[in-house]
Amino acid sequence: MIIIMRKDATDAQINNVVEKLKLHGFGIHLSKGVERTVVGAIGDKSLIELATIEMLPGVYEVVHIRKPFKLVSREFNPDDTVVNLSKSVAIGGREKIVVIAGPCSVEGEKEMLEAAEVVKAGGGVALRGGAFKPRSSPYSFQGLGEEGLKYLAEARKKTGLPIVTELLDTRDVGLVAKYADVIQIGARNMQNFELLKEVGKLKKPVLLKRGLSSTIEELLMSAEYILSEGNRNVILCERGIRTFETYTRNTLDLNAIPVIKKLSHLPVVVDPSHGTGKWDLVGPMAKAAIAAGADGLMLEVHPKPDEALSDGSQSLKPEVFNQLMRELKAVAQAVGREV
Amino acid sequence: MIIIMRKDATDAQINNVVEKLKLHGFGIHLSKGVERTVVGAIGDKSLIELATIEMLPGVYEVVHIRKPFKLVSREFNPDDTVVNLSKSVAIGGREKIVVIAGPCSVEGEKEMLEAAEVVKAGGGVALRGGAFKPRSSPYSFQGLGEEGLKYLAEARKKTGLPIVTELLDTRDVGLVAKYADVIQIGARNMQNFELLKEVGKLKKPVLLKRGLSSTIEELLMSAEYILSEGNRNVILCERGIRTFETYTRNTLDLNAIPVIKKLSHLPVVVDPSHGTGKWDLVGPMAKAAIAAGADGLMLEVHPKPDEALSDGSQSLKPEVFNQLMRELKAVAQAVGREV
Amino acid sequence: MIIIMRKDATDAQINNVVEKLKLHGFGIHLSKGVERTVVGAIGDKSLIELATIEMLPGVYEVVHIRKPFKLVSREFNPDDTVVNLSKSVAIGGREKIVVIAGPCSVEGEKEMLEAAEVVKAGGGVALRGGAFKPRSSPYSFQGLGEEGLKYLAEARKKTGLPIVTELLDTRDVGLVAKYADVIQIGARNMQNFELLKEVGKLKKPVLLKRGLSSTIEELLMSAEYILSEGNRNVILCERGIRTFETYTRNTLDLNAIPVIKKLSHLPVVVDPSHGTGKWDLVGPMAKAAIAAGADGLMLEVHPKPDEALSDGSQSLKPEVFNQLMRELKAVAQAVGREV
Amino acid sequence: MIIIMRKDATDAQINNVVEKLKLHGFGIHLSKGVERTVVGAIGDKSLIELATIEMLPGVYEVVHIRKPFKLVSREFNPDDTVVNLSKSVAIGGREKIVVIAGPCSVEGEKEMLEAAEVVKAGGGVALRGGAFKPRSSPYSFQGLGEEGLKYLAEARKKTGLPIVTELLDTRDVGLVAKYADVIQIGARNMQNFELLKEVGKLKKPVLLKRGLSSTIEELLMSAEYILSEGNRNVILCERGIRTFETYTRNTLDLNAIPVIKKLSHLPVVVDPSHGTGKWDLVGPMAKAAIAAGADGLMLEVHPKPDEALSDGSQSLKPEVFNQLMRELKAVAQAVGREV
Repeated sequence: MIIIMRKDATDAQINNVVEKLKLHGFGIHLSKGVERTVVGAIGDKSLIELATIEMLPGVYEVVHIRKPFKLVSREFNPDDTVVNLSKSVAIGGREKIVVIAGPCSVEGEKEMLEAAEVVKAGGGVALRGGAFKPRSSPYSFQGLGEEGLKYLAEARKKTGLPIVTELLDTRDVGLVAKYADVIQIGARNMQNFELLKEVGKLKKPVLLKRGLSSTIEELLMSAEYILSEGNRNVILCERGIRTFETYTRNTLDLNAIPVIKKLSHLPVVVDPSHGTGKWDLVGPMAKAAIAAGADGLMLEVHPKPDEALSDGSQSLKPEVFNQLMRELKAVAQAVGREV
Repeated sequence: MIIIMRKDATDAQINNVVEKLKLHGFGIHLSKGVERTVVGAIGDKSLIELATIEMLPGVYEVVHIRKPFKLVSREFNPDDTVVNLSKSVAIGGREKIVVIAGPCSVEGEKEMLEAAEVVKAGGGVALRGGAFKPRSSPYSFQGLGEEGLKYLAEARKKTGLPIVTELLDTRDVGLVAKYADVIQIGARNMQNFELLKEVGKLKKPVLLKRGLSSTIEELLMSAEYILSEGNRNVILCERGIRTFETYTRNTLDLNAIPVIKKLSHLPVVVDPSHGTGKWDLVGPMAKAAIAAGADGLMLEVHPKPDEALSDGSQSLKPEVFNQLMRELKAVAQAVGREV
Repeated sequence: MIIIMRKDATDAQINNVVEKLKLHGFGIHLSKGVERTVVGAIGDKSLIELATIEMLPGVYEVVHIRKPFKLVSREFNPDDTVVNLSKSVAIGGREKIVVIAGPCSVEGEKEMLEAAEVVKAGGGVALRGGAFKPRSSPYSFQGLGEEGLKYLAEARKKTGLPIVTELLDTRDVGLVAKYADVIQIGARNMQNFELLKEVGKLKKPVLLKRGLSSTIEELLMSAEYILSEGNRNVILCERGIRTFETYTRNTLDLNAIPVIKKLSHLPVVVDPSHGTGKWDLVGPMAKAAIAAGADGLMLEVHPKPDEALSDGSQSLKPEVFNQLMRELKAVAQAVGREV
Repeated sequence: MIIIMRKDATDAQINNVVEKLKLHGFGIHLSKGVERTVVGAIGDKSLIELATIEMLPGVYEVVHIRKPFKLVSREFNPDDTVVNLSKSVAIGGREKIVVIAGPCSVEGEKEMLEAAEVVKAGGGVALRGGAFKPRSSPYSFQGLGEEGLKYLAEARKKTGLPIVTELLDTRDVGLVAKYADVIQIGARNMQNFELLKEVGKLKKPVLLKRGLSSTIEELLMSAEYILSEGNRNVILCERGIRTFETYTRNTLDLNAIPVIKKLSHLPVVVDPSHGTGKWDLVGPMAKAAIAAGADGLMLEVHPKPDEALSDGSQSLKPEVFNQLMRELKAVAQAVGREV
């Protein structure tokens, strides 16, 4: 932390700042310039609410050195983390790109099995589907709950695909963990810290989606919650942020891919289905995500999108999914990887 | 819902859309123009995922008629809702403006009692303070938990002020409800729908904060969750949204006040402390909030802001709070109300 | 400027940074810590594109000290600037709040005179109206040009109200300056630096509107352009920023008022008509603006809003304007000022 | 346009709306439902300021059918527009992807020639460089003006590369057109409609950059200004939008590529240098842009980025540029195109 003093700061004010920082265990480097004095404070940011320093008399500005996260940072762990979704499917590292696909929500037994077959046939290596659905309206379909989890497990049994499904409530941790191979924390719960702490106590992989208006730093801080509880199997997911643009449902922020790769060792997947909200934008953005360095994709695929109970307009039909998978292979190869 | 067909839509495509809508129980109004056909669909939006209509062949655009909320709408209930915080303190309706004040987090017994005295002396009618704190870093102070709730209860006993405190986790509903007079749902949990359902089952007043990047419509939909479970004692709180502007911590959106007043019957309070993040902006924005029609204010007040464990830089010192209370009285009077 | 070196930065890298900065005339303060070295560079930011420092080997982060502006800053000039709109109307300083009102665009001679009478009768002290209109569609009404300026001048003659009108093009500086008492630079031209330089060469007051997505710092930098050319008669105008919220046309950012007051000595007016886009939100936000400390308001008033050629939905009818003026007087008085 | 009447709208109110619309030349389709009446109005949106309809008594909501643009729309011209930058270089259509590269600003004769050689050697087919620079501070380097244009012309002579350079002021149209092969309208001038009208009168290709906070629809409307004046040689450029994320300078919005391709026939280029503001993000985002379907790239390349007078931190060194060009070839091939 760097504290820049006002031009007219008195020696007493400077001393006061220094003493206050020392009290909180910071090491101090004082730099008196012609115009201003600058105080460098070195130590653990978590020991003090730094903003309070801003209020001390004579302080002009407090500058935080970025990167408050630790365990998730590439400085802490220079090697890419590899997360195992099942015995045969892993994500992270340099080569294999993982495609997770399936319907937005689990709608029924027959529909789920059908979707799973479509995913497998097209080359997907993991199955997604929500049994607990966070819906902005209380009057919308809220998911099948445990029944949905059972259908997912059945689909896994038939196809061998590991399953990724969302957890909404701390009270359901055990239930969801019993069925899921990967526990998804959705965008709306990215800063539900109690939920993060609970999945941090598990060993299961966690797929953590970026919040609609979360900075990349906040996403990494939320991942830090999980890692700090002991669970290092975290996959980050970019799924679109909220901007002023209204043509797309969200603005899929592919910049997040190289930024996260630089700052962290955790694998990154991209969800162009939620990210754009329109099925005909999914293909171009999926290819772009791979070209930008993503480790995987989450795609909404539905046997009959126009009958979907949620998010049908962003789901791919089987034949569109199959065609896209072929195109993704080519792009992956062009960047030295494979789907 | 209005479905606008493409200029080149065939009769078969139009019929298909109409049939699909009828199947979901919509009443249909067909309007064939020279250029385009427009299909009006009347019925309950919750019966179908409307977006899927957009995918049908020949459809140009689907237009949603705004206001998916019901119980919270002013159309449903034209009269202002009045919520009782205690036997003597009520919020909503035309006259009295309520000031809720206190520290960001409960830090200790002595500090809490001291803060409560400051609030009462200054003219605040309810006490705020967080015992469970949602912090973006796992290494920051996370609150005192039940111990903090006990200090709040003690402060209530001494001062008679009802207490407003945050609930983070569905597992703590009973615990927080045992102590709190008003349960606060924070900005990060505005779309934690499981939590909303739980507080919807209580009778206690709920203070629901707008999410950082939530539209006013989404805020009202989240309130709808609570009302639809049976709890009508909901207070809405504007506390700043996330924009590109970095000078302020958030952008306090005072436009939300008259907009909510128009759309809903629920009372609105404004939190200029979190909304701006800077104590010297709190005063002007508090006065502006009242001038714009707010029913109440939530202010951070701390006996010694520079020793606060959280958000000290946005907390008012006692003497600044007292001075502000005097100024607020004048502004309230100017708009025909009183503090 | 503060340069924070990487933990593993070598002495050679540190020296390289220092040398480079010295070369550009910066004074240097070196602070070697246990963990990192921090380089403070003191001098004129304009001498070097600071971002290039970020690229030097061993640099972790470059921190810019805020406030690149000079002439507009309150540090430079602690006293409020007072700008004269005419012999009898001045804006800025502590007491009088100025209401500028009129139609969005000049639509005809009769309409303009009628509007001017409405403004005067209601208590407005200056008249607004656009003769050159920046419209997002080439097919929308583009304004009457010089003819419109003439109608404005006529309205001034009849009512004595000084006129505020927009300038769009460097080629029209002379023309607009010939008629206008105050030259308005619209939101879309806030960073049209060539236009800013030209009005900077005049003596006429300039009303500079904040861009849709401009930070307060950028607004002040644009004002700096005008002052640096010699024209100190600048009025800043908050008129709404672009956010994700779609209920209002823009998000009127009243936080800007106290922030600008703190950073700069220039007067601030608020335009709640463009800021909200809805006439029934204008009143509450106008009152709030005054409570927050604005020095003036710009209001759209139209004798017959539903016949307006532009922005009718945000214009006040005469009787609504009159009523609002009465309410504004009360709020102004409550904050120790007068309308 | 669709007008949705209030549930309680009277027949007189409905008739009033209908009459008003007819008066403005709209064709009317009335649809009376059980709950509400819906009025469809067909005709030229430009004839009336539609927002004023919203104010009529009994109106609940007015819904605009999207796409107010005409000449730029794919409905108007289904085939991709191909714009010729020189006799041998064309952009648009299915195959060839065009790389435009060079320094942010023209800094000197020697530097410009050196940069041009680097661009040519690496495989760039057009040269960029600004002689007139829009800088947020009046104290920053403002460009070399005509001298810079001359250096660009010289570089063209030596290398054969057509030149792309920015125009800031209507007074300089002739001057810039004399030297440039392609006239760039920068992000800050995207809604400088007077400038758009002037370049619309030329035959020269215009590269129009998306504004920092402009929607895709607004970008297309600005292009419509140019086409409506007669110049059809317009290239659209995505260069990053402003969001809450601060890690990158802007948020490069690659979603814009497939969206524009769907809505318009004009070619699209992407500027990942300004879009991200960091040279090490340029490569991944450039590859992603091509995978998403861009017709070209604008890259900042500088022989010595750390000596650049502007935007050095986002410029590629020659060897990085060369390496990237090789990688781009592979990605282009994977999507059936070539660089």
